[in-house]
Amino acid sequence: MKLSVVLYRPMYEGNVGSVARAMKNFGFHDLVLVNPCRIGDFGRAMASHARDLLAEARIVSTLDDVLSGADLVVGTTGKRTDADQRHLRLFLRQPCLTPEELCERLSPWKGDVALLFGPEDSGLSNEELMDCDLVVSIPTSVDYPVMNLSHSVAILLYELSAIGPGKVKMAEKSSLDRLYERYRDWLFSIDYPPHKIDYTMLMLKRIYGRSGLTEREVNTILGALKKAEWSNRRLATLVPMGDVSRKR
Amino acid sequence: MKLSVVLYRPMYEGNVGSVARAMKNFGFHDLVLVNPCRIGDFGRAMASHARDLLAEARIVSTLDDVLSGADLVVGTTGKRTDADQRHLRLFLRQPCLTPEELCERLSPWKGDVALLFGPEDSGLSNEELMDCDLVVSIPTSVDYPVMNLSHSVAILLYELSAIGPGKVKMAEKSSLDRLYERYRDWLFSIDYPPHKIDYTMLMLKRIYGRSGLTEREVNTILGALKKAEWSNRRLATLVPMGDVSRKR
Repeated sequence: MKLSVVLYRPMYEGNVGSVARAMKNFGFHDLVLVNPCRIGDFGRAMASHARDLLAEARIVSTLDDVLSGADLVVGTTGKRTDADQRHLRLFLRQPCLTPEELCERLSPWKGDVALLFGPEDSGLSNEELMDCDLVVSIPTSVDYPVMNLSHSVAILLYELSAIGPGKVKMAEKSSLDRLYERYRDWLFSIDYPPHKIDYTMLMLKRIYGRSGLTEREVNTILGALKKAEWSNRRLATLVPMGDVSRKR
Repeated sequence: MKLSVVLYRPMYEGNVGSVARAMKNFGFHDLVLVNPCRIGDFGRAMASHARDLLAEARIVSTLDDVLSGADLVVGTTGKRTDADQRHLRLFLRQPCLTPEELCERLSPWKGDVALLFGPEDSGLSNEELMDCDLVVSIPTSVDYPVMNLSHSVAILLYELSAIGPGKVKMAEKSSLDRLYERYRDWLFSIDYPPHKIDYTMLMLKRIYGRSGLTEREVNTILGALKKAEWSNRRLATLVPMGDVSRKR
């Protein structure tokens, strides 16, 4: 598993430096900063002996620039009250994983994983979390659940650093995108109620995100969808004529 | 288990504030500062919504002031190179536990546990670690093993917060101290080679530290030592006379 840490709009240079240090402590090196604050002397001081990692961080301007390159995107969220969690679960159509559950989920795989952290004040929005394949939340006290950004990074990397090298190659993000596109086309082609398509697509993404898919599995499903499409087209050319017998 | 976090000579107020925040995030409240740096606005800012915890921190001037009150003292050390670890193991006469192993060790118990962290630049000295009942080290990359103080605290509290309430009451520190004193007296009384006493005492402390002792077990061992002392005294009054037959 090749893991990159993506900080989306970090606000405080001290945190960015501390994140770099925690990454190097646990043997991770790929830091991506999306539209970050200015990073000066204090940020570098907090990075301590991980200044090289900070200097080599990729800086991009939008989230899409990085997420399109990852096979799997894991969003992070601060656990809030139970009511918030319920709301989030309903919104995301998936439960938040604990760090341990995330490790179990990721350990058989190899592939490019992006671990995504939102800005210090608000975290990732529900819409941003919805674009993630998996969502993880560190269990904290209900009295004060909001953790420091670099502490969250350190705890997750501490857990993830225990994962050995995975054996099964994940399907690439581009293959999954093609799969979901074909699925959407197929739903349109079968006259699926348009107002239900987004919800159903999200559910499908959740199911496949949870199960993990290999390239071969993606190809099998794509093959089935192609067959369905052909069959559908053939019927579409036949049915309007009202004469199925012509086929024989 | 009632856990206090003890920072020994912390040097940076930002770290102290961050530690307070991590404690509150994981539901721990008892912070003890031994001879700390000055804590001003920046430290309070880093504590964020845990300023109350920071304000209520106990400030003491020596390590003994706090350690004598704990039933079990857990020292922390930054994992350094393998060679350092071997050296440390030989020196301490016990292996460093991983955070997971520490949880397993502590989970059956209830009692007052002090989790002790050294200063940012040097950590706890070997001598200070030797005074601890258990020593824990977070597994890190060999390339850069030195973690930020508040990151270490956050990771250990994250692990420890998962422990449920223990059922077995630990023997109190004062009972263990009495036990070790009696053991030392006993070693003297049996003409144990004086240059070996410190080493043997350390070994005994390690064994009992690892096993954990209840008050009842301490009393049983104390009883046996008392018996041995009496028997020894009686013999001492007899043997110099060179006439054991008198006893019959």
